[in-house]
Amino acid sequence: MDKILRIHMGPDKDPVCTETPLGDYAGLGGRAMTSTIISKEVPPMCHPLGADNKLVIAPGLLSGTSAAMSGRISVGCKSPLTGGIKEANAGGQGSQVLARLGYAAIIIEGKPKKDVLYKVVIDRNGARIIEDNSLRMMGNYDLVEKIKQEYDTATACISIGPAGEMKLAAATVAITDTDFHPARHAGRGGVGAVMGAKGVKVIVLDDTGMKMREPKDPEKFRAANKKFVEGLKSHPVTGQALPAYGTNVLTNIINEAGAYPTKNFMWGRFDNCSRISGETEAETETRRGGKATHGCHRGCVIQCSGIYMDKDGHYLSKQPEYETVWAHGGNCGIDDLDAIAMLDRLDDDFGLDTIEMGATIAVAMEAGIAEFGDAQAAINLIKEVGKGTPLGRILGSGAAVTGKVFGVERVPVVKGQALPAYDPRAVQGIGVTYATSPMGADHTSGYAVTANILGVGGKVDPLSSKGQVELSRNLQIATAAVDSTGMCLFIAFAVLDQPETFQALIDMINSFYGMNLTADGVAELGKTVLKSERDFNARAGFTSKNDRLPEFYKKEVLPPHNVTFQVTDEELDEVFNW
Amino acid sequence: MDKILRIHMGPDKDPVCTETPLGDYAGLGGRAMTSTIISKEVPPMCHPLGADNKLVIAPGLLSGTSAAMSGRISVGCKSPLTGGIKEANAGGQGSQVLARLGYAAIIIEGKPKKDVLYKVVIDRNGARIIEDNSLRMMGNYDLVEKIKQEYDTATACISIGPAGEMKLAAATVAITDTDFHPARHAGRGGVGAVMGAKGVKVIVLDDTGMKMREPKDPEKFRAANKKFVEGLKSHPVTGQALPAYGTNVLTNIINEAGAYPTKNFMWGRFDNCSRISGETEAETETRRGGKATHGCHRGCVIQCSGIYMDKDGHYLSKQPEYETVWAHGGNCGIDDLDAIAMLDRLDDDFGLDTIEMGATIAVAMEAGIAEFGDAQAAINLIKEVGKGTPLGRILGSGAAVTGKVFGVERVPVVKGQALPAYDPRAVQGIGVTYATSPMGADHTSGYAVTANILGVGGKVDPLSSKGQVELSRNLQIATAAVDSTGMCLFIAFAVLDQPETFQALIDMINSFYGMNLTADGVAELGKTVLKSERDFNARAGFTSKNDRLPEFYKKEVLPPHNVTFQVTDEELDEVFNW
Repeated sequence: MDKILRIHMGPDKDPVCTETPLGDYAGLGGRAMTSTIISKEVPPMCHPLGADNKLVIAPGLLSGTSAAMSGRISVGCKSPLTGGIKEANAGGQGSQVLARLGYAAIIIEGKPKKDVLYKVVIDRNGARIIEDNSLRMMGNYDLVEKIKQEYDTATACISIGPAGEMKLAAATVAITDTDFHPARHAGRGGVGAVMGAKGVKVIVLDDTGMKMREPKDPEKFRAANKKFVEGLKSHPVTGQALPAYGTNVLTNIINEAGAYPTKNFMWGRFDNCSRISGETEAETETRRGGKATHGCHRGCVIQCSGIYMDKDGHYLSKQPEYETVWAHGGNCGIDDLDAIAMLDRLDDDFGLDTIEMGATIAVAMEAGIAEFGDAQAAINLIKEVGKGTPLGRILGSGAAVTGKVFGVERVPVVKGQALPAYDPRAVQGIGVTYATSPMGADHTSGYAVTANILGVGGKVDPLSSKGQVELSRNLQIATAAVDSTGMCLFIAFAVLDQPETFQALIDMINSFYGMNLTADGVAELGKTVLKSERDFNARAGFTSKNDRLPEFYKKEVLPPHNVTFQVTDEELDEVFNW
Repeated sequence: MDKILRIHMGPDKDPVCTETPLGDYAGLGGRAMTSTIISKEVPPMCHPLGADNKLVIAPGLLSGTSAAMSGRISVGCKSPLTGGIKEANAGGQGSQVLARLGYAAIIIEGKPKKDVLYKVVIDRNGARIIEDNSLRMMGNYDLVEKIKQEYDTATACISIGPAGEMKLAAATVAITDTDFHPARHAGRGGVGAVMGAKGVKVIVLDDTGMKMREPKDPEKFRAANKKFVEGLKSHPVTGQALPAYGTNVLTNIINEAGAYPTKNFMWGRFDNCSRISGETEAETETRRGGKATHGCHRGCVIQCSGIYMDKDGHYLSKQPEYETVWAHGGNCGIDDLDAIAMLDRLDDDFGLDTIEMGATIAVAMEAGIAEFGDAQAAINLIKEVGKGTPLGRILGSGAAVTGKVFGVERVPVVKGQALPAYDPRAVQGIGVTYATSPMGADHTSGYAVTANILGVGGKVDPLSSKGQVELSRNLQIATAAVDSTGMCLFIAFAVLDQPETFQALIDMINSFYGMNLTADGVAELGKTVLKSERDFNARAGFTSKNDRLPEFYKKEVLPPHNVTFQVTDEELDEVFNW
């Protein structure tokens, strides 16, 4: 992982791949890598779909090693959805394979002079870029199958579906999982639209013949990794709940807490939530011959994913995540797991962010385009996006644009990005993260559900503003660091509760790189990343006014707790005063 | 004009009209009135379609008097298009009638609790609000005809078409002209969507039995008005060019200057412009039994409007303005005057801003939705807006949203509002106004075409950045003042060139109100208005980054002069440092 692949798409010349040394970017990984490059190389006022924007794809610091949980990949750019900096983070095999091929980052820059489509093929002999218009408007599933036929030793694909080609602001970058399904997505902020604007349909990765990355001190590394895995296995969330029920274990928990956003954030409880809960989902998967426990990348010991079969026992999708089940389920009043899995499959195939699309359909339902609870209507709406009809393009542009076009006032977005599956009035800590994260509304950038609801990493009353700013601040700092390691964020449950597991993580990094990182050093890394992201956004014209929830969260009370969002603007402005 | 009419729409109670004294707002008119009220009473972070936004309608200081040219009306709100403050300004009879009825402003606030439609009827007995769902989705033309049947003594209507009811961001507020046609529009910024969100379809005005407003010193006032009219009549622009050919006299002039934005700002000259010029338009109107010279309100001595008949000699629309002819014509590659007049009629009927819609259709043409030059396709697209189809709603949301939905990079907007009919690369002074006006891209807020192209009010090289900031600054200040008087902006030609005509204007105000306003005082008024507008925008989250042209104006050279926009960001930031 000692080089960067720059792919210059034009328009001054034909696309060309160049390998360069790391230079100033040495020692960076994942989100630290993408955000540093974007902040340094992309003019903040540029058009997100223009030649000046760049798409950066980076494995984490420990990706491609034998470290457990190290398969996360970061995709960064100026976001077409938020207009600010973006790091979207995904699992799957891409990160491990790219790291083993020796690339610390791929930077796609410029813009093709002609309206043609390219594929990039990277193997141990290097990278080459090939025009291939036969791939036009292919869904991700068909695409990777075709690629597999053509490149039978390929080990991962990074691709866009029709949504990315259409440059829709809810378009994702798909990463193939261990089954070569394009089911893991760098979902948020429209990173797929930027890949589409660059004219790159797919990056084919083949690490055949490449070895696992070797630590400087293999023995210490092995010992630390062992301790780390033990920590994960012993924690009730990562050792039991997530393996058994996946992320969707949260449905019953968040609903019980009265924080489950129902029908476009009208209520905090969904009456039929047991029909779409993780327990029901796991039972359904097992009964139909799917899998309730499955990892998205090699080296995962949590195995929070699964395989969802249709009624006839055929593969339909990977196990829909909690956020997806909520977005297409409770948030739209839909209680049909099969319909939700179909929506997940369609989103993955078209290359669409499930959170953004669920929030968008709920806004469309509030506008009267369909009835809340009408699963078939929701499926039809997502199919419109795949077809690229005007209605589909509106929806594929996300909740903010959909709200604008249909004149809806209650639109759950911050910085133009849809809120995820925790109502900020009943989990006020996550509300602080939604409001202030440089990414727009994003649960993963400071997951205060931990101390607010789950009793992990302390306890903070979810219904009060007290302590939320400090909680969100610390989590945002820690997350920015974790997102740079290539580690799955779910390690945080054990790391927050078990000092020895946190130490094991630090020991892994230190023994791999021969460094002397401390806990304080980890926090410093997180702060540096956040600072560069906020600096980019400020140069793009963002102010504290962008760090606010939509006003309806401050005005409408949320049943059953009948609370509004209590954190004041002045408190929100303190989040980054560390 | 000593009272304000407040119309509270709910949702706490049924709509109710209340008359209040002027209080803090005494001495204000037009834009000074609307911007002061919005800046003081509307929370800058509110949703433009929400209960906290207000729609303010205000005649100018001299409206309702015998002063020539005093029939302009200001409509203000937080704009659904720009997210900032908005004053949209229109002619027609509304201003004179409202002023004679004694109202210095109508403020519509709150939001109805039910999805019902109201009409407001105002006559010498006061105001009343009446539920009337029979008006739903009526075009402005049918609407005013129905109103005239019901209220046969009505003297003016202020109304919205289907676009306003659908809360589209390009929706206008229509004002009837001297023929009771709904052909004058407060066009820009989506003020019609705010009226739609308030549930008010039409304000019916009847000033029967009311008298002209009386000046404090009738003799001095009469003398000043006489001098003022003489000045206007003696100036070549207001005395000859505008009466003969209307605003469309500019087509040949701006095209000759290489500043006529053609096919979505690709070129500065349109080959077929003579087919849609003011000369051709006037000749066509006269030949078909229409009128080439016509005033939009009583008391107009310039008479820059006209009546456009179709091929069979039936009324089709008022004479399409230069901006409309450009937006639907050259900017879309369309050279068919009849088609342009039809588009003007449809825009007026649906209640759509012709500038925004022309710019939007050109963006849609760049996206491949239709071919440049296809007049029938353009007509069909506007009809989609009237029908409220998904495609129509996209277009009716303006150029920025249309660009986003269709992934177009070259989108000519500032603060979300489309650029008018002068390319900022070939008229760099108007580029400064586009970039920095608190209104978004707006030619009327600082019409630097004067000194850049027309040789009015001095001469400044249009292709250089030199002197443009000072020029735009002075014009923006003067315009903010003129927009507060109720005077038509076209008086500026004579006022800029003839010190005695400027003095006559000041004398009119002073003799009417018994004031001692000086030229410096006029400038102070303009500065005060601009300051309150910029203050509102700052509190809504605007920064200097919002005072920028889209990057393509700085990167793409415009033929035939092959220039880019030369004014630097640092220079733009000096506009309001007076």
